[in-house]
Amino acid sequence: MNAIGYYNGTIGPLEKMQIPMLDRAGYFGDGCYEACFVRNGKGFALEQHLDRFEQSLGLLRIAPPCSREELKAILARCVAAFDGNEALLYWQCSRGTALRQHNFPEPSVPSNLMVMVTQKTLPEAFGTVRLMTAEDIRFTMCNVKTLNLLPNVLTNQLAAERGLDEAIFVRDGIVTEGTHSNVHLLKDGALVTHPADRYILPGITRAHLIAIAKRLAVPVYEEPFAKEALFTADEILISASGAGVRSATEIDGIPVGGKAQALLYALQSEYHRELTEETQA
Amino acid sequence: MNAIGYYNGTIGPLEKMQIPMLDRAGYFGDGCYEACFVRNGKGFALEQHLDRFEQSLGLLRIAPPCSREELKAILARCVAAFDGNEALLYWQCSRGTALRQHNFPEPSVPSNLMVMVTQKTLPEAFGTVRLMTAEDIRFTMCNVKTLNLLPNVLTNQLAAERGLDEAIFVRDGIVTEGTHSNVHLLKDGALVTHPADRYILPGITRAHLIAIAKRLAVPVYEEPFAKEALFTADEILISASGAGVRSATEIDGIPVGGKAQALLYALQSEYHRELTEETQA
Repeated sequence: MNAIGYYNGTIGPLEKMQIPMLDRAGYFGDGCYEACFVRNGKGFALEQHLDRFEQSLGLLRIAPPCSREELKAILARCVAAFDGNEALLYWQCSRGTALRQHNFPEPSVPSNLMVMVTQKTLPEAFGTVRLMTAEDIRFTMCNVKTLNLLPNVLTNQLAAERGLDEAIFVRDGIVTEGTHSNVHLLKDGALVTHPADRYILPGITRAHLIAIAKRLAVPVYEEPFAKEALFTADEILISASGAGVRSATEIDGIPVGGKAQALLYALQSEYHRELTEETQA
Repeated sequence: MNAIGYYNGTIGPLEKMQIPMLDRAGYFGDGCYEACFVRNGKGFALEQHLDRFEQSLGLLRIAPPCSREELKAILARCVAAFDGNEALLYWQCSRGTALRQHNFPEPSVPSNLMVMVTQKTLPEAFGTVRLMTAEDIRFTMCNVKTLNLLPNVLTNQLAAERGLDEAIFVRDGIVTEGTHSNVHLLKDGALVTHPADRYILPGITRAHLIAIAKRLAVPVYEEPFAKEALFTADEILISASGAGVRSATEIDGIPVGGKAQALLYALQSEYHRELTEETQA
């Protein structure tokens, strides 16, 4: 299965694709992106991802590279070109191609659209993860899905080197989110998750999880929680579009969770049902 | 005068240069850079820039793309290919080319080296600037010269839209630095500048300014100062390799400085003398 790349109208094998050296993504990280899971040619929660993409573009003051309908057609074309049934569909937009200067290029300079389709297996329904905590050294634009991901890269690498699945950030004692996931607790029958402010990404899987909890009459508190709460929670969940809803068995070497498995499984099953039903052939 | 680009061994007109879509610079901003002023084929303070480059690479855990001597030869080759006497020499290194995943690629994946040489006139000796202040929303890795520059881009654009030259960041009431410059005060005959911690870049021009002040027996205090201090300082200076040492005449619409012109000019003249002498034919 060959990964597919697309850039401003050109489509081809991802590993052969080139972009201009002067694309502002390459020297400023001046752009934003989205990624969603695809099965049977159907992007899961694609419309929500497109909504958030438009929101990120607006917050960064980047003109959309094309209309939403045109973008959907391009994404569908890329997915169709991919020789596989399950994939991660990634797309990003940068603030155009221009000589390096901090302020924006002329408005006549068009945005750049880049797409990558790569192999990705269906997220497990009941996956588990081992986590570590790390200082949240990121900027305070975490609500925008930008290409400025160095702190995420460096912190995720620390987790990988310890044989762990993900690192979760702690800012001033408060758990914000993972390097590429949102973090939630189950405590006393309720779902607790960081409010959608500038310290976390408003995750699409997070939104699904909140909606599912509400449907199951589980109280939802969008409230900050301290690092210590991880160790007294009934369950810790992390969510991401590419990996679904997984529960933590260990954080910083300490066993966690396992105290509300029925509720955990109910939430996970329901998410997995939505994911598989909406992407069935 | 045609700008020059270089990428992993290939040199050519900058606007024609391409890089792989899978260079981690383009989707994570996973790399660092340097830039120095060049005249008569000589990079000003090149060795100091190379030192800082190695420091940035180390802090990001990116393997150098080649030896220091090889890098100097490549930079010299790029400068020689540029058809002009004064230029900005920019080079960056990213953590290689690989399918997108947050953790580092295999150690066998080589770093990518990219160079750009563009036209730049000699910085003025006694330049002045009009400034604004803005919230410092950046991450706390500002000591590393990374490719994660979105907050700098967005904030610099606000200044440009107001017809101003630069915006300076304020974090928790403390002035840190500009979007692409360091900030300093003259007060009661002394130079005051933010300490070189993780909230500012340890600027090469800043280091020159400190050394010059010490040579002129001007006391130097590397201490944080509050935003309010800008409006009671005798002079406000901003420094950057591409633009030299300039003084502020206005911040947030309020006239500032002009109360220690003899000392200001002494520092500026000395910096300009170093710059021109070290880059003479």
